[in-house]
Amino acid sequence: MDITLKEVAQILGGEIDGDENTVISGLAGIERAGPGDITFVANPKYARYIESTQAGAIVCSPETVAPGRNLIKVANPYLAYAKALRFLNPPPKEPGTIDPQACIAEDVQMGRNVTVYPFVYIGAGCRIGDNVTIYPHCFIGAGVSIGCGTFLHPNVTIEERCIIGCRVIIHAGAVIGSDGFGFARDGAAYYKIPQLGIVQIDDDVEIGACTAIDRAALERTWIKRGTKTDNLVQIAHNVVIGEDSCIVSQAGISGSTKLGDRVIMAGQSAAIGHISIGSDCIVGARGAVASDLADGQIVSGAPAIPHKDFLRATTTFPKLPEMRRTLARLARKIEALEAEIRALQEKHST
Amino acid sequence: MDITLKEVAQILGGEIDGDENTVISGLAGIERAGPGDITFVANPKYARYIESTQAGAIVCSPETVAPGRNLIKVANPYLAYAKALRFLNPPPKEPGTIDPQACIAEDVQMGRNVTVYPFVYIGAGCRIGDNVTIYPHCFIGAGVSIGCGTFLHPNVTIEERCIIGCRVIIHAGAVIGSDGFGFARDGAAYYKIPQLGIVQIDDDVEIGACTAIDRAALERTWIKRGTKTDNLVQIAHNVVIGEDSCIVSQAGISGSTKLGDRVIMAGQSAAIGHISIGSDCIVGARGAVASDLADGQIVSGAPAIPHKDFLRATTTFPKLPEMRRTLARLARKIEALEAEIRALQEKHST
Amino acid sequence: MDITLKEVAQILGGEIDGDENTVISGLAGIERAGPGDITFVANPKYARYIESTQAGAIVCSPETVAPGRNLIKVANPYLAYAKALRFLNPPPKEPGTIDPQACIAEDVQMGRNVTVYPFVYIGAGCRIGDNVTIYPHCFIGAGVSIGCGTFLHPNVTIEERCIIGCRVIIHAGAVIGSDGFGFARDGAAYYKIPQLGIVQIDDDVEIGACTAIDRAALERTWIKRGTKTDNLVQIAHNVVIGEDSCIVSQAGISGSTKLGDRVIMAGQSAAIGHISIGSDCIVGARGAVASDLADGQIVSGAPAIPHKDFLRATTTFPKLPEMRRTLARLARKIEALEAEIRALQEKHST
Repeated sequence: MDITLKEVAQILGGEIDGDENTVISGLAGIERAGPGDITFVANPKYARYIESTQAGAIVCSPETVAPGRNLIKVANPYLAYAKALRFLNPPPKEPGTIDPQACIAEDVQMGRNVTVYPFVYIGAGCRIGDNVTIYPHCFIGAGVSIGCGTFLHPNVTIEERCIIGCRVIIHAGAVIGSDGFGFARDGAAYYKIPQLGIVQIDDDVEIGACTAIDRAALERTWIKRGTKTDNLVQIAHNVVIGEDSCIVSQAGISGSTKLGDRVIMAGQSAAIGHISIGSDCIVGARGAVASDLADGQIVSGAPAIPHKDFLRATTTFPKLPEMRRTLARLARKIEALEAEIRALQEKHST
Repeated sequence: MDITLKEVAQILGGEIDGDENTVISGLAGIERAGPGDITFVANPKYARYIESTQAGAIVCSPETVAPGRNLIKVANPYLAYAKALRFLNPPPKEPGTIDPQACIAEDVQMGRNVTVYPFVYIGAGCRIGDNVTIYPHCFIGAGVSIGCGTFLHPNVTIEERCIIGCRVIIHAGAVIGSDGFGFARDGAAYYKIPQLGIVQIDDDVEIGACTAIDRAALERTWIKRGTKTDNLVQIAHNVVIGEDSCIVSQAGISGSTKLGDRVIMAGQSAAIGHISIGSDCIVGARGAVASDLADGQIVSGAPAIPHKDFLRATTTFPKLPEMRRTLARLARKIEALEAEIRALQEKHST
Repeated sequence: MDITLKEVAQILGGEIDGDENTVISGLAGIERAGPGDITFVANPKYARYIESTQAGAIVCSPETVAPGRNLIKVANPYLAYAKALRFLNPPPKEPGTIDPQACIAEDVQMGRNVTVYPFVYIGAGCRIGDNVTIYPHCFIGAGVSIGCGTFLHPNVTIEERCIIGCRVIIHAGAVIGSDGFGFARDGAAYYKIPQLGIVQIDDDVEIGACTAIDRAALERTWIKRGTKTDNLVQIAHNVVIGEDSCIVSQAGISGSTKLGDRVIMAGQSAAIGHISIGSDCIVGARGAVASDLADGQIVSGAPAIPHKDFLRATTTFPKLPEMRRTLARLARKIEALEAEIRALQEKHST
């Protein structure tokens, strides 16, 4: 795809410093870019390459100075990089047809330009929005609703009555709406508590591969607009995750816990059930939150404590055996001192 | 569904204190219940709502006193709640038919009233019991046996020769009978040890979404009656889990480890291989059991130690840097004391 | 299958000490083996059974002495056991046919003797090597290449353009080539960075059930020859894993991290992103590597430290509360000593 610098600047919302008629046909890293490529300096440590790069143009921050180079200055070069990547590599166009080898209930309300691949199952009473794409082996249970532009990768399971928003991406093997893990004790045995609620996933959410999101016991497990989960994440019944949050791989959130907006839970982290984690909190990798967190807390460790305290404690941890030996040594010294003082006192009293 | 209080009491096995002819049509939480609803007080902290609730009847413990209200007194109100939920919300009736778009080997022995959805694959020599339900995209390998009333959610894989009991529920994306992770070193490389055993899952077990249970090397990986696993659980080859145990999300049990009955392994916990965990043990969230546990132990931490010790140690952990500073300060004080005592001793000896 | 000891010895590359015409028909553990069975002593603790076993022949290490028994002496008895197991239990022969209920793009280049089961989807432009087996519900995206002898268990997803080597085994529910978890901040929201790279899996790799391997942002996520991953493992975008490495269940490797050859990451371990772990490193169970590791390091803990240091520190951990009490006691003693010394000093100065 050939495009002028002027057009690139318009797409990225940037200011040109250089020749707006330069023609761009690709995107590459600053060390490899050639005269037909646009490149980016998002990280200051790559600024030193600006002089030597062969790139036809450089997207950079507004304060960059590079006489003789073609620059596009933008407030957020990393975001501009992502936008240019997508623009220069548009996803393949889906056929917009329903494959006859899919199995679709008669009463499904199908939007326009929907793509359904072979071996997809769509149950009774579903509503599928415009421009939805459903890859092979997806299961859409009865009464599910899917908003416009949503994309289901292969092998996704969405169980009955769940509600999926617009422009949602669900990766392969994810399970939405499995039963919550709820049992009442009946003597030694467990009696299954019916899980009658649903999962609701709002617009612009992305769900990772092999992630499991359980349906609520009675109401809804709810993932709000813009939140992204990575692969192999566990979200238990009745959890609520606010907007624009980020749940990294292998994290697990226990039942009925509520997360605010813009929360980050790093890889393999966890939250116990029935707690509340405030907006803008960050839970470090492997952190395990065991009680409510106010807004904006940064925590780590298991159970999680303020991240700074965790760092200090964890740095000291390997010194524990040495500390224990020091303690024993000091105790012995103190005993010796006590004896010497007793001796001195006796001399005095004599 | 309309039902009298008398009928409800019979189903729940409770005693009525009030008007047994009151008609009930639904179930709701105590704060929202209306005159047609039955509600529950399982947790004492909700007892204060008994006076103000609009509910038509309240299921509660035998000692509850509430003059003028319709009560159903039961020994275990939470269990009664679960039973009433199921009674008032019976699961949708499955069609009891075999979809022609399923692919079923000719010699499969099929019970009565079996439901097989489209795109199910059932291999040669399988035996499927009465009232089994198999959702789309399930794979049942050759020679698998499935007991009566078992329910397979979509996308479940059961590999060859595994034995599944009656009334088992397996959630979407679960894999039963994948190869155990066994290799012999052949110089630097790994040589795969054939995994010739099976997985046996007994009656009334429930397996969570995206859970993986490996087949044994030679004999069987065995999940006994009534045990429940949550989502994303790993159960390695030759593991044995006793009856009525509970393996919470993202827990992992390594090869050949044996669990007794009524064991609870909380979220993200783990057990190393070739150990034995006694009946009624509880492994706390993120606990990692590294050696045998006698019956009834409650442990936490990694490696797991008695839960009380873990709680105390973990509370002290953030104080480590302060302890280290205190140690250094005391060491300096002791040096100072030693110097002063030496001075005093010298004065004395002069 | 009946076979003479002579033939067994040839297959295993061992020396016979005994009657080479003994006929063997099976394999069993040393305590259960009968006259028609071959058995193995790989672990010295079982050597005491050599005298009493009923086995027709014993595979053992070269230094074993057992007059009157039929021995096959090999350098690595455990490897010999694995080889004999496979020889005596050959996997069932696959039909080598393409099921008409599979959905295969017209231009797929299909090798000889390929087995494709019902409900498999193979997209445009794929190349499938000789003797490949693809079980039901597998999805092979457009442009994927699969080498000779590779075996895909049911429900495997391989997304577009990924490259799979020869003799690779991928277990049920695994997802290869899902999008990497990459986003640029756009104010509070996340903007998806297109993931344009691929996953490349080299020869003789084995991938566990429900494992997720993300495609690279631009180039490739790369699993090199002979590496084995267990179930529920997370491998993020742009990760490179060297040859003959071993990633145990529920481990997670973050984006752009590089592992050398023969690395072992034990169960539930982790590595943060953008680091390098040298060849022959071992990361203990639940270890979390947070910085580069030179070759041959053995580490544990989170963050990971040398395994020996971890063991010592972790043994001391439960003693923390006692240490804290000791510290307080010593501080009080020191105060008392200081007071006594002050008293002695005053007496002296008077």
